[in-house]
Amino acid sequence: MQKLILASASPRRKALLEQIGLVFEVMPSDVPESFPAEIPVRERAGELAAGKAAQIADRVASGIVIGADTVVVLDGRPLGKPDAEAQAFEMLRALSGKSHEVITAVAVIDAADGRMAQDDACTQVFFRNLSDAEIQGYIASGEPMDKAGAYGIQGKGALLVQRIEGCYTNVVGLPLVCLARLLGAFGIRAF
Amino acid sequence: MQKLILASASPRRKALLEQIGLVFEVMPSDVPESFPAEIPVRERAGELAAGKAAQIADRVASGIVIGADTVVVLDGRPLGKPDAEAQAFEMLRALSGKSHEVITAVAVIDAADGRMAQDDACTQVFFRNLSDAEIQGYIASGEPMDKAGAYGIQGKGALLVQRIEGCYTNVVGLPLVCLARLLGAFGIRAF
Repeated sequence: MQKLILASASPRRKALLEQIGLVFEVMPSDVPESFPAEIPVRERAGELAAGKAAQIADRVASGIVIGADTVVVLDGRPLGKPDAEAQAFEMLRALSGKSHEVITAVAVIDAADGRMAQDDACTQVFFRNLSDAEIQGYIASGEPMDKAGAYGIQGKGALLVQRIEGCYTNVVGLPLVCLARLLGAFGIRAF
Repeated sequence: MQKLILASASPRRKALLEQIGLVFEVMPSDVPESFPAEIPVRERAGELAAGKAAQIADRVASGIVIGADTVVVLDGRPLGKPDAEAQAFEMLRALSGKSHEVITAVAVIDAADGRMAQDDACTQVFFRNLSDAEIQGYIASGEPMDKAGAYGIQGKGALLVQRIEGCYTNVVGLPLVCLARLLGAFGIRAF
């Protein structure tokens, strides 16, 4: 089986790959996440995932490289990582009592020959109604600041989410069923 | 804040309580999980959750005790833990390409005065189509044998699940939003 490389610094993506028992190494890409705003969100995520995988594939002689990009979309508008607590508050206030989409694009590249497979997953996430005091309490926990949409479903943010429709691991940052299908095309299987 | 006690030996429930930052101790109950089959599944889960919490509440002078019971239901029929690999195979074959329900009943009891609050959550889980070779590979990983329905969504079993509709942590074994609402009535909050 070929060497597997995760082109991401995300501890959450690392934990998801470990969850399915895959052996891999981490080589974070440094592709800038800004992108022309006129490109549709889903397409942009796909370009970024492919760009991240391609950057690392260029640096190694062989191996199967995984790139991913996750976006949180509310009413068609992408929510990035909050710059400050006030912005985290605004994001969580906007998400309260509504549903939004989380899209993760995944790209897998064989570094030896440049062959690429890619796909994405979209999950609907329904937030319960949050009081201002709850939002402030959640922000005080320190969890929102490094996360797109200002929450982490795999942490205390689980308490914000009434229900989801779709793939859970996609919301965490790496849709495992989608990824496994792509990896299968390169001969890599979890079981 | 009162002492919190988890009346369950499940490492998955322990991990979920840790995920939301609660401080607690574990005191597993030994309430038998068998129950008259003529009682509806959801009602039986509620009785078992209350019975588990009550057993531990009887043993301590004070504290807030959490009991829970999770059932996997396919076409109205509960699936327990498989007795043998052949039974795990049959269960996974039956779940393949279909949706089933996971119900977790939760009961919270104040040991000092016996006051109880309880509720449950139900999540639809949609399995993708599994080949016999995939099922055998998953069984060979050793994961199915101690789990109701013969899979664990928080492990390699994530690769079996196409999508869910509802609360994810409910499928793992403890619906956190439901639990937090019950704990709030006893003055316990995660943030």
